Amino acid sequence: MADDRHVNLRKTIAEAVGTATLLLVVIGSGVMATNLSKDVGVQLTINSAATGLILYILITLLGPISGAHFNPVVTAIQLFKKNITASLATAYLAAQLVGAVIGVALANFIFNLPIIEISQKDRTGAELFVSEILATAGLVFIIFTAIVQKSEAKIPVLVGAYISAAYFFTSSTSFANPAVTVARTLSDTFAGIAPGSVLPFIAAQIIGAALGLVLSTFINSPNKTGNEK
Amino acid sequence: MADDRHVNLRKTIAEAVGTATLLLVVIGSGVMATNLSKDVGVQLTINSAATGLILYILITLLGPISGAHFNPVVTAIQLFKKNITASLATAYLAAQLVGAVIGVALANFIFNLPIIEISQKDRTGAELFVSEILATAGLVFIIFTAIVQKSEAKIPVLVGAYISAAYFFTSSTSFANPAVTVARTLSDTFAGIAPGSVLPFIAAQIIGAALGLVLSTFINSPNKTGNEK
Amino acid sequence: MADDRHVNLRKTIAEAVGTATLLLVVIGSGVMATNLSKDVGVQLTINSAATGLILYILITLLGPISGAHFNPVVTAIQLFKKNITASLATAYLAAQLVGAVIGVALANFIFNLPIIEISQKDRTGAELFVSEILATAGLVFIIFTAIVQKSEAKIPVLVGAYISAAYFFTSSTSFANPAVTVARTLSDTFAGIAPGSVLPFIAAQIIGAALGLVLSTFINSPNKTGNEK
Amino acid sequence: MADDRHVNLRKTIAEAVGTATLLLVVIGSGVMATNLSKDVGVQLTINSAATGLILYILITLLGPISGAHFNPVVTAIQLFKKNITASLATAYLAAQLVGAVIGVALANFIFNLPIIEISQKDRTGAELFVSEILATAGLVFIIFTAIVQKSEAKIPVLVGAYISAAYFFTSSTSFANPAVTVARTLSDTFAGIAPGSVLPFIAAQIIGAALGLVLSTFINSPNKTGNEK
Repeated sequence: MADDRHVNLRKTIAEAVGTATLLLVVIGSGVMATNLSKDVGVQLTINSAATGLILYILITLLGPISGAHFNPVVTAIQLFKKNITASLATAYLAAQLVGAVIGVALANFIFNLPIIEISQKDRTGAELFVSEILATAGLVFIIFTAIVQKSEAKIPVLVGAYISAAYFFTSSTSFANPAVTVARTLSDTFAGIAPGSVLPFIAAQIIGAALGLVLSTFINSPNKTGNEK
Repeated sequence: MADDRHVNLRKTIAEAVGTATLLLVVIGSGVMATNLSKDVGVQLTINSAATGLILYILITLLGPISGAHFNPVVTAIQLFKKNITASLATAYLAAQLVGAVIGVALANFIFNLPIIEISQKDRTGAELFVSEILATAGLVFIIFTAIVQKSEAKIPVLVGAYISAAYFFTSSTSFANPAVTVARTLSDTFAGIAPGSVLPFIAAQIIGAALGLVLSTFINSPNKTGNEK
Repeated sequence: MADDRHVNLRKTIAEAVGTATLLLVVIGSGVMATNLSKDVGVQLTINSAATGLILYILITLLGPISGAHFNPVVTAIQLFKKNITASLATAYLAAQLVGAVIGVALANFIFNLPIIEISQKDRTGAELFVSEILATAGLVFIIFTAIVQKSEAKIPVLVGAYISAAYFFTSSTSFANPAVTVARTLSDTFAGIAPGSVLPFIAAQIIGAALGLVLSTFINSPNKTGNEK
Repeated sequence: MADDRHVNLRKTIAEAVGTATLLLVVIGSGVMATNLSKDVGVQLTINSAATGLILYILITLLGPISGAHFNPVVTAIQLFKKNITASLATAYLAAQLVGAVIGVALANFIFNLPIIEISQKDRTGAELFVSEILATAGLVFIIFTAIVQKSEAKIPVLVGAYISAAYFFTSSTSFANPAVTVARTLSDTFAGIAPGSVLPFIAAQIIGAALGLVLSTFINSPNKTGNEK
């Protein structure tokens, strides 16, 4: 019991550290990129590459500790599938939010910006809404398809590769994560999002997560008679 | 029997989802890239990286379901080799075409373009024709050499790496896929192709596929006496 | 005994060769990049990619020989953990410093610059100090977490990916290595650092290494009753 | 006997096909890159990425057939180590040269250039000479260290990563291959080399190969009493 609490503390801290690092990289590399180049294509390439690489690292090393969710929609699905207790899920959600805010603050500090500022960058419109649905559906499809296929070892590369690509093939640049979305309101940079755009983004992410889970479940459904090769 | 139908439905939908995602990424990242940068080298680098990464992901996760063809020439070769029934091959071809069109329409929608428009981008000339022959020969050589060498597990990385590179070393940017070629007529962007250029491209792809298969078969031919180390 | 000396000589030379190659690549690709492009984002992308790739190669091939430290903080931690003798650690530190200087000199020679020059590039300020703490903490966390998790085989990719990303998400571009920091005073280029900025950088690296080790130890701490799955 | 001839023919054709593809990619992606971008950093990034990716593919698939040398210095070392007969080595050298020329001609054709033209690009000077020594030493060190360490399976990634990086950290952009050097005289593009610069390049490559082999042999030398852990 005491030991369970110790384990859960380690897991929760791993979620906070991972989400903080993810936001440090998303915001930090975005600021660095805008400082370095005037070509927005080059800027987003830098942002995309740094984010994909750090996701590979974080999921590789923290996956064995906490499962490396770093994302409330992943935690919610694991709760729905009863793979995690309600109390640990609650702790994860808090850790993800607090971690994300700390990550933004650290990025702002090391790039000499106000530690917390409010983004002015509106991100609205049906095309961004649908874009976030697709982005989150893809992320959830990947994670839960890899789990069903017992290919968990590939998740770090799959998720890193997906997010790197999704920066470019979605018009929203794929937030795909409510904790990331909330935290990015606190950075008035390239990678920010105005508070007024947050709720539609999160709604789209929830719809996308549900769609991704349904599609993954259907495509990977077992055969009734088991005679598939 | 009923179960076979269920299996085949899952496989066919996997082909449609995979091909739709591939086109969403090819067109979407092309539009995004032209919006972001004026340097066409940067644009095509973004397009190439996003396409290669998504191919790695799609083949990893949908390979175990449908074989992850996403390409009529691959389906045709598997039919020719009797690795797939004629009825399933027909379903795959339809799924690839419908999926490809849906992918283009989704990309157009999320980037705020007309859902369907007709490309004005002529792609003609002997050099493009030979380029598509080489591009498709390389793709087919890779897939069927990996299969003969029992290295199927490497196909996701090999094909993703190949298509990323082939954007640059062929003058046609390597369509190498008839379903992709047809669907790209429906996007009047960077990545489009005018309808009048489609038939020669498909002819070149068929010639290339045959060449790639012949070369792969020769290079991997077994020894008569089996005394090779 | 004589044989131990032979082994230790091979190991020490591997450290010198590895650190020299690392600096050749860091400085050389930095000079090449500034010669090729006026876009600093493109320059640092080239520098980052070349450094990450060579780290993957060096750690893969020299890891089995010397452990592939190439970094005094890693050697110091291994000495602290009694994984290396004091005499070998001393030899490693000397080899890393000498190797790093040779690497800079080689880079300067092949790019037609004065073989040794003194950098004028000041790198000071609290934000750079904190940035180096974070950069080194991350590097140490990755290496020692991978070791505890018996994932040593992943260290070449993890470290290469980390340093490539860290060029961009830290404002200091992540030196994270005292031998590299000292040697980079000898190149008055893009990648240089003025001598006056060295001591605070090394202090930050030591603090970061300690933080990274403490966090890795906590997150990977065993359970008292061993009942964690 | 008849079968040996069949095996050797397959191997020799694999060397020709691999070397032709390598040159098609080196020249083709160089021409494409100069057509697309005015930023030479972007151009060389495209050239470097396409070359590294295709080397990974070619060595993965043709390694099991011919050993995937594609490079006279590798064939010469394998002959010196008696891992290949003199007659097969001779056939490989011819195949590499002929293949390389065919690859350049194909690249020129599909990019609408004169099929054969003579490069005007002088590449001379002590710094380029030393640069080619280092480039080839590194390549040979990597290949033969991986072989001694029984890590042949990593050679495709190691060599692809190395050549991609070496484009940038050497002032010569790392030809590191006599067949490639000769063939690149036939392209008056970005990637060409004037005939007068060829002999010093090949001399440097031979010196580098010897150095790389000696260093690899020393660093991987077995212990006399086998008491190393």
